[in-house]
Amino acid sequence: MPNPIAAMIVIGDEILSGRTRDANMHYLAGQLTEMGVDLKEVRMISDDARIITETVSTLSASYDHVFTSGGIGPTHDDITADCVAAAFDQHIDVRDDARALLAAHYEKTGRELNAARLRMARIPDGATLIDNPVSIAPGFTIENVHVMAGVPSVFTAMVASILPTITGGAPLLSASLRIERGEGDIAGPLAKLAEDFEDLSIGSYPFQDNGVYGANIVARGTDQSRIDALMAELKEVFA
Amino acid sequence: MPNPIAAMIVIGDEILSGRTRDANMHYLAGQLTEMGVDLKEVRMISDDARIITETVSTLSASYDHVFTSGGIGPTHDDITADCVAAAFDQHIDVRDDARALLAAHYEKTGRELNAARLRMARIPDGATLIDNPVSIAPGFTIENVHVMAGVPSVFTAMVASILPTITGGAPLLSASLRIERGEGDIAGPLAKLAEDFEDLSIGSYPFQDNGVYGANIVARGTDQSRIDALMAELKEVFA
Repeated sequence: MPNPIAAMIVIGDEILSGRTRDANMHYLAGQLTEMGVDLKEVRMISDDARIITETVSTLSASYDHVFTSGGIGPTHDDITADCVAAAFDQHIDVRDDARALLAAHYEKTGRELNAARLRMARIPDGATLIDNPVSIAPGFTIENVHVMAGVPSVFTAMVASILPTITGGAPLLSASLRIERGEGDIAGPLAKLAEDFEDLSIGSYPFQDNGVYGANIVARGTDQSRIDALMAELKEVFA
Repeated sequence: MPNPIAAMIVIGDEILSGRTRDANMHYLAGQLTEMGVDLKEVRMISDDARIITETVSTLSASYDHVFTSGGIGPTHDDITADCVAAAFDQHIDVRDDARALLAAHYEKTGRELNAARLRMARIPDGATLIDNPVSIAPGFTIENVHVMAGVPSVFTAMVASILPTITGGAPLLSASLRIERGEGDIAGPLAKLAEDFEDLSIGSYPFQDNGVYGANIVARGTDQSRIDALMAELKEVFA
């Protein structure tokens, strides 16, 4: 059975302007690979309601899972929850279960659960909450879309909450070999090997370290014995 | 006149698998912001010919400029140049101008210009070469698509070659204020200010540093006097 396929949507003008460097994509990618979910596409988009709604609609129809990052805080530029609700044509308002979580948290910390903070309890009908042990305000899953916060510590915690509920596939295995020759010398023999190992994905990633140049050859697949066989041949060819 | 708008395509399975953390998107975003080109969308996609071709077609029709990163080296998994040619229905083969650059380089360094390295001289008809002072093998521009390497040092050099040829707009100016209060306390007054300053984009970016929590409020726009006016009001409201 093929692995489940996934897409991610990174939402935020601060990423596209270069002010903030996104960290969530790289983190999620590694987590999904470990559990055998293939991340096929990432879109980074701006805080624009029409674009968020359209992107969620398009990707949720094409992938088994869609993960979003960003735009679920208390301020006026946090519009992701409403856009996701619109994408699924669902009603959204402050929901009792989310409000109860926030009320308990703010009572304990002695802060006011004001109108702005209540925005974080806006959850679409039919969605399931995603636990947020860091700052309490929950994410949510609606159909195949998992809506999470952009702050990396919160995103990471929400990913840890949601991934155990997702069925993975065969974990992607990989092995790599560092070859200290120009990629142009490696490419010919490597292309021949790639034909013999069509069941593996073979990538060549050139490097230059202090005047030493070469490439890391990475083989990825789900069958360890095939990866081992390729690595043995690679070592022989490039010994 | 509105600023030119741009999209970026980051190509490579190694990014989507989490093996490599992309650095080019953040770099390009900062450079474009400085020169007044608005980066509106980034797509990270896999080394799949159909997907690369379709993504280039779609985005080049929607934006003033499209920048790509990755997949123009000498190995079998470097298929970007052929896919971009297909997107514009252009013939592609080893081109004399690119071959001459490579021949001179490899003669000087005493390495062989073999079949694999010649792949890097495959340039679509009608494209203009992008200078690569780091490792010589050129990128290219065809219509509004700028095709560049994925290795960050080479990508950076190619960006420096191409940006001076692009007409920018009004540079995006910004100012920020650090407020050490919970975002939930900031959100209400901030939403009111955002209504008064609709010509500015105002973002709120929460932080937690060693138990101190708060948010950085960032105002972006093209009119410095409006940004100054907002900053003055922000300081008054949150003093």
